[in-house]
Amino acid sequence: MEDPFPASVIPFAVSEGASAAEVVERMAGTAFQARNLGQAAHIWDAMLRDEVTIFFGLAGAMVPGGMRPVVTYLIENRLIDCLVCTGANLFHDLYECLGHRHWQGRPGADDVELARRRVYRFYDTLAVEHDFTIGERFVTDFCLTLDPEHRYTTREFFELVGRALIPVAKQEGILTAAARHGVPIYCPAVGDSVFGLCLAEARHRNGQTVTFDIIRDVLEMTWIATQARATGVVYIGGGTPKNFVQQSAVACYIFGREKPGHSYGVQITMDEPDWGGLSGCTFEEAQSWRKIAPEASFVTVRSEATIALPLIVSALAEGSAEAIRQRRRPALSFEGLAE
Amino acid sequence: MEDPFPASVIPFAVSEGASAAEVVERMAGTAFQARNLGQAAHIWDAMLRDEVTIFFGLAGAMVPGGMRPVVTYLIENRLIDCLVCTGANLFHDLYECLGHRHWQGRPGADDVELARRRVYRFYDTLAVEHDFTIGERFVTDFCLTLDPEHRYTTREFFELVGRALIPVAKQEGILTAAARHGVPIYCPAVGDSVFGLCLAEARHRNGQTVTFDIIRDVLEMTWIATQARATGVVYIGGGTPKNFVQQSAVACYIFGREKPGHSYGVQITMDEPDWGGLSGCTFEEAQSWRKIAPEASFVTVRSEATIALPLIVSALAEGSAEAIRQRRRPALSFEGLAE
Amino acid sequence: MEDPFPASVIPFAVSEGASAAEVVERMAGTAFQARNLGQAAHIWDAMLRDEVTIFFGLAGAMVPGGMRPVVTYLIENRLIDCLVCTGANLFHDLYECLGHRHWQGRPGADDVELARRRVYRFYDTLAVEHDFTIGERFVTDFCLTLDPEHRYTTREFFELVGRALIPVAKQEGILTAAARHGVPIYCPAVGDSVFGLCLAEARHRNGQTVTFDIIRDVLEMTWIATQARATGVVYIGGGTPKNFVQQSAVACYIFGREKPGHSYGVQITMDEPDWGGLSGCTFEEAQSWRKIAPEASFVTVRSEATIALPLIVSALAEGSAEAIRQRRRPALSFEGLAE
Amino acid sequence: MEDPFPASVIPFAVSEGASAAEVVERMAGTAFQARNLGQAAHIWDAMLRDEVTIFFGLAGAMVPGGMRPVVTYLIENRLIDCLVCTGANLFHDLYECLGHRHWQGRPGADDVELARRRVYRFYDTLAVEHDFTIGERFVTDFCLTLDPEHRYTTREFFELVGRALIPVAKQEGILTAAARHGVPIYCPAVGDSVFGLCLAEARHRNGQTVTFDIIRDVLEMTWIATQARATGVVYIGGGTPKNFVQQSAVACYIFGREKPGHSYGVQITMDEPDWGGLSGCTFEEAQSWRKIAPEASFVTVRSEATIALPLIVSALAEGSAEAIRQRRRPALSFEGLAE
Repeated sequence: MEDPFPASVIPFAVSEGASAAEVVERMAGTAFQARNLGQAAHIWDAMLRDEVTIFFGLAGAMVPGGMRPVVTYLIENRLIDCLVCTGANLFHDLYECLGHRHWQGRPGADDVELARRRVYRFYDTLAVEHDFTIGERFVTDFCLTLDPEHRYTTREFFELVGRALIPVAKQEGILTAAARHGVPIYCPAVGDSVFGLCLAEARHRNGQTVTFDIIRDVLEMTWIATQARATGVVYIGGGTPKNFVQQSAVACYIFGREKPGHSYGVQITMDEPDWGGLSGCTFEEAQSWRKIAPEASFVTVRSEATIALPLIVSALAEGSAEAIRQRRRPALSFEGLAE
Repeated sequence: MEDPFPASVIPFAVSEGASAAEVVERMAGTAFQARNLGQAAHIWDAMLRDEVTIFFGLAGAMVPGGMRPVVTYLIENRLIDCLVCTGANLFHDLYECLGHRHWQGRPGADDVELARRRVYRFYDTLAVEHDFTIGERFVTDFCLTLDPEHRYTTREFFELVGRALIPVAKQEGILTAAARHGVPIYCPAVGDSVFGLCLAEARHRNGQTVTFDIIRDVLEMTWIATQARATGVVYIGGGTPKNFVQQSAVACYIFGREKPGHSYGVQITMDEPDWGGLSGCTFEEAQSWRKIAPEASFVTVRSEATIALPLIVSALAEGSAEAIRQRRRPALSFEGLAE
Repeated sequence: MEDPFPASVIPFAVSEGASAAEVVERMAGTAFQARNLGQAAHIWDAMLRDEVTIFFGLAGAMVPGGMRPVVTYLIENRLIDCLVCTGANLFHDLYECLGHRHWQGRPGADDVELARRRVYRFYDTLAVEHDFTIGERFVTDFCLTLDPEHRYTTREFFELVGRALIPVAKQEGILTAAARHGVPIYCPAVGDSVFGLCLAEARHRNGQTVTFDIIRDVLEMTWIATQARATGVVYIGGGTPKNFVQQSAVACYIFGREKPGHSYGVQITMDEPDWGGLSGCTFEEAQSWRKIAPEASFVTVRSEATIALPLIVSALAEGSAEAIRQRRRPALSFEGLAE
Repeated sequence: MEDPFPASVIPFAVSEGASAAEVVERMAGTAFQARNLGQAAHIWDAMLRDEVTIFFGLAGAMVPGGMRPVVTYLIENRLIDCLVCTGANLFHDLYECLGHRHWQGRPGADDVELARRRVYRFYDTLAVEHDFTIGERFVTDFCLTLDPEHRYTTREFFELVGRALIPVAKQEGILTAAARHGVPIYCPAVGDSVFGLCLAEARHRNGQTVTFDIIRDVLEMTWIATQARATGVVYIGGGTPKNFVQQSAVACYIFGREKPGHSYGVQITMDEPDWGGLSGCTFEEAQSWRKIAPEASFVTVRSEATIALPLIVSALAEGSAEAIRQRRRPALSFEGLAE
């Protein structure tokens, strides 16, 4: 009897000493979310081999969750070209760059007691207010160096934060690596974070007003999408980073161009489509909006990102090592985009 | 034998013709999420009877999901005092105010075909691009009326949008009701929405630059929290609205005040704490940050909001009718807050 | 412009004193899970008006969760014709029938301390071991009355339990109502519950062997499905009740009949399809197995059942009152099914 | 400043060519579910080094999902001592042992068309009815060889199925490996599966009655728990396997023994506690029932099992290789347990 379908499930063979790349490759032959995880590595690998500008949308408490070096690796080795991020992850990155640590706690802790001890909890992870305050002071002091007459894109702002961090950083992080390697960072809700609080304090107490040009952020993102031969996206969680990257594809009409949407898509998320929100929406749904191209390759991995992301990136570090070394992407440029 | 515990489960009695308030009250006596839903009504009712400023954080595609009149009811009857919202919900509100409709579709639709027909999908709901474009044009035209020299808080911006809508609105909505009743609306990621795209287009094509003062938003939210005798929160979903309201409580130090955190909390969300992110975090976790007061009353309802929100609000409309009528809350004021 | 789609979203109008039926009807016009909940009421109503045998699969801790009277109502008013259930729900029903109560606790309780105090926890609900033991003794004593030579279907077994309960019951429950009204109860994993433990104890300590004829259960379920003009299903959660009802449709070939699968389907569940398991699988997937008919009407409501079930049943009690009164269904018969 | 907490988060370092064991070890130093996954490997490793009888509860469509060789590996290398399983997984194991394959499909397939083509879907995976029928015929033929006078435990039944498979198996599987290595398999809802249907058919068509002694299953499981120096559990998903293993710990009183509950616990599940059901309940909750010992080591990994299970088992195959080789566990014995 002829095979009725193009590919059979290849049950997962256990072997001693298997590498991350081998494990992920075996997962690709199985089913359910393991197959999706394997596919995610395949699609990311395809992006690295194609001439694609890769947007990376990062939500969730990934830095407190131990993912700073993973994202740093993505920047340093240019597995991504542009980062869109929550303010929280960037503040926690700064906090770790300054040498402070997150601590292992547990979900059922006595939070009123933690508050009394001035310890902050993120699920099973802790940070000490005293260290946090040192980070906040760094931000506030940094803000006082900014030009009150200038309207900053969040890209400019975080590049300057990164540059200010480099001389004092105890270890490399997202902000420092991005500044060094010319990878732009956008933060669509910068006010909604410790940065916002520090800026509010600098303004109220020190009379230092920092102005953001958030519409220029939108134009720049759209410009990147418009100029690229093709674009791909990797989303960790949903929120503003996902939406901000999504909308960049569809807005190319602003520059008089019609683009088909992003050509590659990977999302790692626990959000579900069934509640109707953007965070959990499928790439198929995004196709109706022309945010994702009709012919795009994409996959959604329903896994918590601290599991799926380091596993996939470890697999790529081995399995796509040559493609990573060969990939030469120029720094993104905004030449031609009017002020 | 004495009762070993203060309250027993009271199994749910079915009766013909039960009202929403009776159903919710019976749920409060049961267990699991029904008990939480009943508790949510109790806590909201307690907020209405106490001298509390109520923040409402609204994420998710609630307006396409048919919740516009529910939120409008909350504003008109002052069950909430301040709305923090995604740009998407506000654009969809504007779209419905202008007389356009959302349509019933289905999740498994052919999205490439929908794209061809210029129809946008949100899970099981549709919007027609042609109508969308009319809404976008309204926004773009509105933007051209703004003062390019002024830096707008999102509160000012959306109050002006609401006022611009009132004369042309085919039906009442969130923006129009908020403008009429002096309920402020904040949008922490305004660039990350159709508003952002329209503003980007107005700037690139028409040279009209609108500047937002997003740090002033932070200061105003903090000012509200600082001035209030006590504060309460109701979150629909997570995202920037939840975080923006959370941080307002903790930032009162900017004005030299230490506040204990919000005193009442209700959240209706499908997000889980187990992934470590802000959207799913518990009120207990927020206590470690002093965003929620040590003695606060709070509950999380793990239900999709289109079920829980209209059910709770219908119950309050009946069961808290007197409290709602009696509640007299002055409009929030920013007097005393330096520019 | 002509309406592009057959039905528009009808945003939810809040009104004072709305009944459960009105709330559910309004939900049907909205989107996401509220629309699904409204549809569930519509489909159940259609089953009541059609000549349909209705299977009800009940998993989860619904009786500790306060749902005993809701299920009892379904039996007494014949909104269902056959119940397939976990042993746990049936034991808790017996426990409540005997006059014992479940208590309101909280999820984060100190469980080691509860164990010391001999209190059992189910999420936010408690039961006292002392009362539990009285229930267990009832079961053990009951088992000693059974015929060691007979092989019992679980239907026979639970009908006898119900009859034994009637004279001593302090309040009506699932077992007593089912025995009174001739609604059969099947329990596909009866050993996997307190009943199994009591029977094991009766055997080891008292030498009383009770034998179940679990294959006869399969034949009877299949017989019901084969004899029915049409069948419908309502699933609360997944597990063995769902699968056992599903498989009854497909097994009609045993009696030389090919049936198209169940014609109506409602499931209320928080289980997701994305993990590949039976509990979360869609009705569409069941169509590939011919467990659900190609033309069937069905809907899945992603809501915790303590919210959705009493709300839907309260709505049916009002909105389908006439259909319920008119529905005359003969007791299911096994005449013609060989021993 | 002294370290305020015993362990800090150790951010995940990406390296080329990392092994599965290294990846899992790095995850143990991070947070959220990756930390839990790392802990799961630690706890399983501790079980292998301690004198512990390990129960493995297996629910979900793990065999269609490509996990047959992973479970087979666990049996062959004695990482588990007793398997409790759904009938579905065992039938699919038999199906693969006979040389049939599962196929890669996709979730949004046209199921009515699949039904027409006689193809069954499990989420993104397919099986061909024709092959299925060959498997069913194997079961039916096998049943005709059984003794109609004997009451079979499910352990005896599946051991005999395994032995019948060995001579014809095209590849090793769960049933064959368990029969070869003396690892008992229990199936608490055997009627609720293809086995139940085949047995029903054999009875109706061929007059062959097979009787199960499901209460003896309960006694044997309890006997194992009672005789063991200590017990540990690994649950994949919930359902009857989890509950059946849980209850074995608490039922030791049947044999006049009080045991503290299981001493080690690992569960990999997407089920949540918030709905109150057994499948998602926490190990803490199980402590209130004395199913889990007060001092037990346990962890819940909220990940789909096709990702977490092969990753953990691959890591153990390397990191615990020596412990696995050294582990000598006698076959479980029922000597002393009265018939």
